[in-house]
Amino acid sequence: MKPLNIGLVGHGFMGRTHSNAYVSVNNFFDLDYRPVLKAVCGRDAAQTKAFADKWGYESIESDWRVLVKRPDIDAIDICTPNNLHKEIAIAAAEAGKMVLCEKPLSMNTAEGEQMCQAVEKAGVANTVWYNYRRVPAVSLAKQLIDEGRLGRIFHYRAQFLQDWTISADLPQGGTALWRLDSAAAGSGVTGDLLAHCIDTALWLNGSINSVSAMTETFIKERKHNLTGKVEKVGIDDACAFLCRFENGALGLFESTRYARGHKALYTFEINGEHASIRWDLHDLHRLEYFNHKDDSLIRGWRSIHVTDGDMPYMKHWWVPGLQIGYEHTFIHQVADFLAGIAASKPVSPTFRESLETQRVCDAVLASGKDQTWHRV
Amino acid sequence: MKPLNIGLVGHGFMGRTHSNAYVSVNNFFDLDYRPVLKAVCGRDAAQTKAFADKWGYESIESDWRVLVKRPDIDAIDICTPNNLHKEIAIAAAEAGKMVLCEKPLSMNTAEGEQMCQAVEKAGVANTVWYNYRRVPAVSLAKQLIDEGRLGRIFHYRAQFLQDWTISADLPQGGTALWRLDSAAAGSGVTGDLLAHCIDTALWLNGSINSVSAMTETFIKERKHNLTGKVEKVGIDDACAFLCRFENGALGLFESTRYARGHKALYTFEINGEHASIRWDLHDLHRLEYFNHKDDSLIRGWRSIHVTDGDMPYMKHWWVPGLQIGYEHTFIHQVADFLAGIAASKPVSPTFRESLETQRVCDAVLASGKDQTWHRV
Amino acid sequence: MKPLNIGLVGHGFMGRTHSNAYVSVNNFFDLDYRPVLKAVCGRDAAQTKAFADKWGYESIESDWRVLVKRPDIDAIDICTPNNLHKEIAIAAAEAGKMVLCEKPLSMNTAEGEQMCQAVEKAGVANTVWYNYRRVPAVSLAKQLIDEGRLGRIFHYRAQFLQDWTISADLPQGGTALWRLDSAAAGSGVTGDLLAHCIDTALWLNGSINSVSAMTETFIKERKHNLTGKVEKVGIDDACAFLCRFENGALGLFESTRYARGHKALYTFEINGEHASIRWDLHDLHRLEYFNHKDDSLIRGWRSIHVTDGDMPYMKHWWVPGLQIGYEHTFIHQVADFLAGIAASKPVSPTFRESLETQRVCDAVLASGKDQTWHRV
Amino acid sequence: MKPLNIGLVGHGFMGRTHSNAYVSVNNFFDLDYRPVLKAVCGRDAAQTKAFADKWGYESIESDWRVLVKRPDIDAIDICTPNNLHKEIAIAAAEAGKMVLCEKPLSMNTAEGEQMCQAVEKAGVANTVWYNYRRVPAVSLAKQLIDEGRLGRIFHYRAQFLQDWTISADLPQGGTALWRLDSAAAGSGVTGDLLAHCIDTALWLNGSINSVSAMTETFIKERKHNLTGKVEKVGIDDACAFLCRFENGALGLFESTRYARGHKALYTFEINGEHASIRWDLHDLHRLEYFNHKDDSLIRGWRSIHVTDGDMPYMKHWWVPGLQIGYEHTFIHQVADFLAGIAASKPVSPTFRESLETQRVCDAVLASGKDQTWHRV
Repeated sequence: MKPLNIGLVGHGFMGRTHSNAYVSVNNFFDLDYRPVLKAVCGRDAAQTKAFADKWGYESIESDWRVLVKRPDIDAIDICTPNNLHKEIAIAAAEAGKMVLCEKPLSMNTAEGEQMCQAVEKAGVANTVWYNYRRVPAVSLAKQLIDEGRLGRIFHYRAQFLQDWTISADLPQGGTALWRLDSAAAGSGVTGDLLAHCIDTALWLNGSINSVSAMTETFIKERKHNLTGKVEKVGIDDACAFLCRFENGALGLFESTRYARGHKALYTFEINGEHASIRWDLHDLHRLEYFNHKDDSLIRGWRSIHVTDGDMPYMKHWWVPGLQIGYEHTFIHQVADFLAGIAASKPVSPTFRESLETQRVCDAVLASGKDQTWHRV
Repeated sequence: MKPLNIGLVGHGFMGRTHSNAYVSVNNFFDLDYRPVLKAVCGRDAAQTKAFADKWGYESIESDWRVLVKRPDIDAIDICTPNNLHKEIAIAAAEAGKMVLCEKPLSMNTAEGEQMCQAVEKAGVANTVWYNYRRVPAVSLAKQLIDEGRLGRIFHYRAQFLQDWTISADLPQGGTALWRLDSAAAGSGVTGDLLAHCIDTALWLNGSINSVSAMTETFIKERKHNLTGKVEKVGIDDACAFLCRFENGALGLFESTRYARGHKALYTFEINGEHASIRWDLHDLHRLEYFNHKDDSLIRGWRSIHVTDGDMPYMKHWWVPGLQIGYEHTFIHQVADFLAGIAASKPVSPTFRESLETQRVCDAVLASGKDQTWHRV
Repeated sequence: MKPLNIGLVGHGFMGRTHSNAYVSVNNFFDLDYRPVLKAVCGRDAAQTKAFADKWGYESIESDWRVLVKRPDIDAIDICTPNNLHKEIAIAAAEAGKMVLCEKPLSMNTAEGEQMCQAVEKAGVANTVWYNYRRVPAVSLAKQLIDEGRLGRIFHYRAQFLQDWTISADLPQGGTALWRLDSAAAGSGVTGDLLAHCIDTALWLNGSINSVSAMTETFIKERKHNLTGKVEKVGIDDACAFLCRFENGALGLFESTRYARGHKALYTFEINGEHASIRWDLHDLHRLEYFNHKDDSLIRGWRSIHVTDGDMPYMKHWWVPGLQIGYEHTFIHQVADFLAGIAASKPVSPTFRESLETQRVCDAVLASGKDQTWHRV
Repeated sequence: MKPLNIGLVGHGFMGRTHSNAYVSVNNFFDLDYRPVLKAVCGRDAAQTKAFADKWGYESIESDWRVLVKRPDIDAIDICTPNNLHKEIAIAAAEAGKMVLCEKPLSMNTAEGEQMCQAVEKAGVANTVWYNYRRVPAVSLAKQLIDEGRLGRIFHYRAQFLQDWTISADLPQGGTALWRLDSAAAGSGVTGDLLAHCIDTALWLNGSINSVSAMTETFIKERKHNLTGKVEKVGIDDACAFLCRFENGALGLFESTRYARGHKALYTFEINGEHASIRWDLHDLHRLEYFNHKDDSLIRGWRSIHVTDGDMPYMKHWWVPGLQIGYEHTFIHQVADFLAGIAASKPVSPTFRESLETQRVCDAVLASGKDQTWHRV
């Protein structure tokens, strides 16, 4: 097996999920490459060291500019807040490194376009961690759609509901809460949650042509962890939008961090002429499927327990009936990425593919502001 | 339409469900007969009168012996505690009346046999109100089995779980609580709840050969409403049994009034070589079905919303998606009974068919006592 | 008991549900009034006669103008296509009759305003059959909200999904399919289905201020049953809208007849600061409830089986665990209406209250056309 | 961190789950010990070598007698067919090694007793891999019970349903199918599946006093992979039993490999005076809980999504709403085992504790044979 030397930037929540993927992937997948945890980069030396020790990174860096130039690094993995994606990705590409970037690709389309041009000019492998595509049940949905089982699509709806920011006492900003700080995150639920929904939708149902959105910030001011002062909240707490897809389907998307009772309820449903599909992150190992062609006496929504060996990715895991969880989606993405570089093939979603998600997000945010329909 | 003059004995919970069935059936089913509420019989004149007024009974009686001899009565419907079934049914049959008897048929097999002989000798139409057979989803299960969709049957399991007698303060006996009084009820959950499970099982899966049971009375003494004294509780609070069916299937049955959280959770599941079926009274309008012959990628338990017009009984009701409830099962049984007498055909379950359920109950109770396997 | 003489106009699907409510209500509710099925009116004499016989109407009429003037009629119940509501309701009010009108109130707000003025001027009792308010689980939701259990409301979402018009071979117009004919129905799913969602929402969550809608007609032309020719379809097959409520909540509504796999899936969910509620017409006897104040170890969505005697309306029915169905909602509405007239109190929703739903529908349809936000 | 040198015997399905636990545990848990994959032992050198390479074992052995004596090994992990457990465990204990043994402990109680005596005499840490105790939802159930939330227990029921041996064409014996060979497995579903149910039950609900069982072998003969001949099947394909617990609760257990539609449906339900609990391996991240003390209007079964940081084990994983899967139960057991040896405390279930499960299994199998109740 060939080594692939990883340089990780950022060691928060996503740093953990990616590191776990790197150390686990070869235990379950037969691949030509094996990731090597060469270095992790973070601003706080003690924390970075502790993270490196925990996961087995060989070295640490405090400046990503140094990391991206290290000759012993093959691939830069970006797990920073969104406002750093562009600069790091471009520098990494210019240094000839492969780039794996956490989602969303960028703060906006303009930034994303620059990033795409950089990786394309450098000719380096690149991907964005829209990990939910690789939940086996979601991959199965893609397969069923590609096989034409649904027929003409009439409706696509998705939601991503959370409830963790309802308290007005929660501050914004800083290491743990940068997702509430518009300077670091760019947007609120739109870039954080809806971006996932949009990525999946574009993958499963094709392009979105136009959108009409509604955004809201329920808690208008919060203490800022960096300044210590109460400051205006710049992010969207909730965002919903109507849209029309290129294929004629109507779309309905919603995301919020104020849906009491839901922790990470990402759901989607697709209604086609012949069949419909539903999925739900809270029970991610199941796919619901309705097949109108069934004999009418035994026609109903099926709950498919996506654990058998003929299901996407599942032959690499356990035996039928035994479910996998959240972190496996990252392992699958690494497995596919490694297979991709072995075959010299791009791995979806590339920067360019993810730019389309950015474009929809921008249109959604603009529509939320001026309250008119926007072309994507 | 020809009238069918009904004489109802007893006006408790079951008196209401039957009366509602009689007054509603012709609004939904096209039949040759129309039930006429001729008389209701009860010991308490004021209560009986109030019941008659509410439901439109033309007259009341206080002595069932008078009622069964009235020439203007065609059919006697027995809704009394179990210990009166035999005497009333035999008298009614001897008077040439049709007999509709609440379940269980009798206090025991010996009584039931006498009742069967009486109606058979008299040649009168007869049926026992095992109403759950006529939940559309249960009738659908029967249809799917009869079509051979399940193949060889390996397992049958059923349970009927309630929680209404957990409090030790609940008394036994009297009008409302005769089900806790062994003198009136014969047994506890075995005759009250398991009898339903057994009736359905015999209908869907054929004869039961042998049983091994366990019974328990959790609250050993309760105040008796009739005597005013604390008395030993004679009924079974809970009963579970293993059994073997004639067709080789293994059976597992359980019933209790001490399953906290369950009100009337009657469920059954049948596992066959090719398919399996599940049903649940708490969501009675759904049938779950697993078809192993499905394409493996889309194989899963289906939740069939049994409301379309091609489902058993459902063309008589509303439109797809709109569910019916509990009392409709009685309406269906009356509809079938009326169709049966128009066609001079027996309507299942007859007394004779229900005697088999009694036989299993007796074996179960005997096994619960001596803790050995019993042949049915 | 005092009689309330009913004159029913129309004897289709709704004619059946209302008739059943009239004949059943006194069997389950103790009331001062008893509906008397005095007359049913329909254009086809044979069909009207058959309906009258089935349900026990004493007489038939072929002209509603005659019916509304009959001195032996106390209340006119309008079950015609929408385009006749206004004229009949106004004539009935002018004749001093109470008016019970099927939903939606009218073809549009202007018509509805005239109807309101007519019943108010005449001082006659009036109501609109938004029956889903009286599903016990929905009434329970109202009660929980009124008790303040949810706190500040952030989100309201509702959908009504069907799939019965997907086939392009289905014609439009005529007796059975007037809901597809814009001349008779006014609109498609907006008036037929969204009107229910909006009525419930206004009841549970207060006024809607503004809307942004998207409408679609998937099948552009269908054979018309009245002309025999292929004609343009004028109704909306699907409609979704974003909205803002007076109380600051964001709303998301969707309705379609092209959601394969759903027959009558009316669902709503409300997210409050302290608690959330979900409901679903396909299992109408359940309410889901999440209470954030629960001890964190045992916090989760509860599935409340709304069948106990302390639940709204349920003491009139059976025993805990035994569910009721769709038609019971109409019985409840009649019970409340009869209690209302006995107490000389208006019964929600009145014409005036339902006019607000009409106003939202009009704004939605206008927004669907010009693709801008509309104030209600 | 101190190393704990592991010697693994067997590298089948369980060898994989244990190895994954060893390599992952320190990435998620802060512990004093780190497992070192010192050696894996298997009969086929090529397969053993491939396994060692995949998981990073430093060496391989072909004879477990050699392995257990290697001075560089601290702990022997037994993942062989059941018939080898005893000999290996005793030899390992005698060599002063800690022993981790796959379940069931042994072929029968007599063997198990010898194993207990060996580890106790040697004073070595020992545990049996009844991994399902450490599903967070199951650990939560234990916590809720220990807090006294359920009150007096009336009922315990469990089932473990599979469907993978329905085909008569499936052979028995050999590496992959030793679970069908009574010589290697001792029993069928009783030791394989019911042992899990019994272990959990003893842990959650205390001792079982007596049992009445029913066993069945549906397919009487199968080709044997070792002999190449069609041979009698000696294992139980299905087993169900009634039992009485020391605490007065009634128990009902069932297991089969002939329940079409179920892959690994291990469920249990406990009904107490005040509350009830349900769990299901097919959705292992959820616990269902019914609390009778809830306000009656909002009383219902709660579906607890066991993913928050205050849930057992979950602070070591991701964020609320993101589920873990099957293999994590093994990681938890290793974490607890390592913490146990650091604290010099036994880790449940020990050999001695698991012997009780063996005792129940023996009574069940004996009862299945002679069809009488057996004391445990």
